[in-house]
Amino acid sequence: MKKNCIVAQSGGPTVAINASLAGVIKEAIQSDCYETVYGSIHGIQGVFKREFLDLSKSSDRFIEQLKYTPAMYLGSCRYKLPDTEEDITAYETLFAIFEEMNIGAFFYIGGNDSMDTVAKLSKYAQSIGSPIRVVGIPKTIDNDLVGVDHTPGFGSAAKYIASSMREMAYDTYIYDLNSVLIVEIMGRDAGWLTAASALARNSFSKAPHLIYLPEVAFDKDNFIKDIQALMPTTKNIIIAVSEGIRDKNGNYISATTAAADKFGHAQLSGTGKCLELLVKERLGVKVRSVEINVLQRCAAHMASMADIDEAFLLGSLAVEKASEGHTAIMTGLVRTSNTPYTYELITLPVSEVANQAKEVPRHWINDSGNDVTSDMIDYIKPLLEGEVPTNYVDGVVDYLDVSHLIPDSN
Amino acid sequence: MKKNCIVAQSGGPTVAINASLAGVIKEAIQSDCYETVYGSIHGIQGVFKREFLDLSKSSDRFIEQLKYTPAMYLGSCRYKLPDTEEDITAYETLFAIFEEMNIGAFFYIGGNDSMDTVAKLSKYAQSIGSPIRVVGIPKTIDNDLVGVDHTPGFGSAAKYIASSMREMAYDTYIYDLNSVLIVEIMGRDAGWLTAASALARNSFSKAPHLIYLPEVAFDKDNFIKDIQALMPTTKNIIIAVSEGIRDKNGNYISATTAAADKFGHAQLSGTGKCLELLVKERLGVKVRSVEINVLQRCAAHMASMADIDEAFLLGSLAVEKASEGHTAIMTGLVRTSNTPYTYELITLPVSEVANQAKEVPRHWINDSGNDVTSDMIDYIKPLLEGEVPTNYVDGVVDYLDVSHLIPDSN
Repeated sequence: MKKNCIVAQSGGPTVAINASLAGVIKEAIQSDCYETVYGSIHGIQGVFKREFLDLSKSSDRFIEQLKYTPAMYLGSCRYKLPDTEEDITAYETLFAIFEEMNIGAFFYIGGNDSMDTVAKLSKYAQSIGSPIRVVGIPKTIDNDLVGVDHTPGFGSAAKYIASSMREMAYDTYIYDLNSVLIVEIMGRDAGWLTAASALARNSFSKAPHLIYLPEVAFDKDNFIKDIQALMPTTKNIIIAVSEGIRDKNGNYISATTAAADKFGHAQLSGTGKCLELLVKERLGVKVRSVEINVLQRCAAHMASMADIDEAFLLGSLAVEKASEGHTAIMTGLVRTSNTPYTYELITLPVSEVANQAKEVPRHWINDSGNDVTSDMIDYIKPLLEGEVPTNYVDGVVDYLDVSHLIPDSN
Repeated sequence: MKKNCIVAQSGGPTVAINASLAGVIKEAIQSDCYETVYGSIHGIQGVFKREFLDLSKSSDRFIEQLKYTPAMYLGSCRYKLPDTEEDITAYETLFAIFEEMNIGAFFYIGGNDSMDTVAKLSKYAQSIGSPIRVVGIPKTIDNDLVGVDHTPGFGSAAKYIASSMREMAYDTYIYDLNSVLIVEIMGRDAGWLTAASALARNSFSKAPHLIYLPEVAFDKDNFIKDIQALMPTTKNIIIAVSEGIRDKNGNYISATTAAADKFGHAQLSGTGKCLELLVKERLGVKVRSVEINVLQRCAAHMASMADIDEAFLLGSLAVEKASEGHTAIMTGLVRTSNTPYTYELITLPVSEVANQAKEVPRHWINDSGNDVTSDMIDYIKPLLEGEVPTNYVDGVVDYLDVSHLIPDSN
């Protein structure tokens, strides 16, 4: 008798994570290696609660629309599995449900916290001799997963950031007076997203003129000096800063107190606002700060086709590998050439990925720590390529019905 | 000998104001009623400084690209002409330059402050017997000009707000926990833009669940009660608030002190952040605030084709009317039917428009003051219709070269 499989999504949203889900569904249906494809609602927590959608009968049209729908069709969770030494009950519960449902594989689409879940589940499966395959599929706008060239979700967020930065530059250039615009970009511990703002530059616009990433200790005095150095020649100074910039003692440059979430990450906001106040105080120039905020991870109408295609492929590959018997792995890709952009799909042991973060290498940041190098730009450029079809109804972007995530939808 | 004309842009940017400029240029070239079409750089200030572009040789391709380029191709200013009784020097200087340049018409694309300039210039021209025609072309994302059905720029901003609100709703629905999202939308004195967030609703998503406009006095206790009333049934409560909401004494609900700009308008920020802190303190629920900020007025890739088309027509009409001898007018449109959406182009005396603001009528806001009515939705809906062609180069939105506005562009 053929086994069934479960797919779930976890962590923060991206506009590409549903494309990976689409890849899983499509491959599972086409390869016919699983009987029923269950979508677990709200990540691994949906398994505990037995909240599933049957995705086995998904039409090609549904799968196509899913590729371009933002956020997470199956919902998400921020649940961290305990270590087996601490508490084995959760594992026993999950695997009892897996057995009862005749599950052969569990696919988890997520970031490094989700890969921790994949690592723990696959390790437990092996420890009890369970044949269940557990395979991770990467996603994170932060691009901070190790072992892969980049992560699905990053390219689309980068495209949104570069395009928005360019549009904001047009907005800024109109006045004949000196001004500073500070744009705060997501990326807690890694500066990849903020670096993507450099792609806004073209033959006549140098914006952003300054870029600050969390990988280099931030110094307020140097920041002011950097602006002062530009002021004689540059009417409108546009600056990209990561939300995660820290001083040399590791303290976040932020107007609000950093509180910790369940995974121990600091919750940041107000970095841009803090620097706006600093510039106003020290330089007295017209200054504005903009926090791009959640739109950089959910503006699906601005997704990169390259990103969506790769996310889809990494979903398909996960099903292929699980059906071949692989487990405790994550799918990914490595770049084989930059011009033309080519890559190979790979898998790697999930234990090498979980709970680690890939920072921007120091040599992709300039010596002064206020810009990125051309290597960084060459790295990001191909990931933004291509536009997606966007459906509009009555002039508003239109995506798949997600009423199963909305208790008050009726 | 044929006269020349000048066109300029003023006030805050919209994604449609260049379409009006395109309309002026196209009509001036086609009708052949003016010899040279000068574009004044940085509004009326460009006349004082004699900073002009010659737009007479604009190609069809340039005019087409101009329609879809955000912000202001000619740059802007926030210059307010003094009253003639206070200081007549500015007028004498301007009209000496007009005469020297053989100017027959001056076209000013802007909001109600810019219409003040049009009113003053045309009044002065009449007082000295100058044959110069002065015609205003409306633009403002705020939609607060009186005498017209709506203003160019509003429909595109409304489309961006509705689409972004929908994308943020997808982002919010993914977690299985109660949360509040507060989205702060522009609109100092009028709630039109915030009202447009209602267009994000569809058959399964009621977001935004609450909408607060500046036209109704804001009460913090009622705001908390509104949220509490929804909490038992609504997992994720999404709220749209205008930056300009005020309490019953007229004080802005804002975390920062309101400072006044040159026109006496308060500079606001932090309304959403202020309410975020209030919700956190009073309800202890997970809460986030997002300030959509300048992207709602410069995201040209999300422009409404209806808006761009209308902006273009109002630019063309201004040239037509000036060449027929009209002056001291503003072009505009009145709606003749909602379904199907039809309108007539009109002109009206600019003195009826200048320095006034059109608020949302109270009967388009519900009795509780926390939502808009279906009449409001019917009014906004046709203005969002149609998508514009967007050019991408290397995966990033690409618009016309505006290096003439950027001193450091080389």
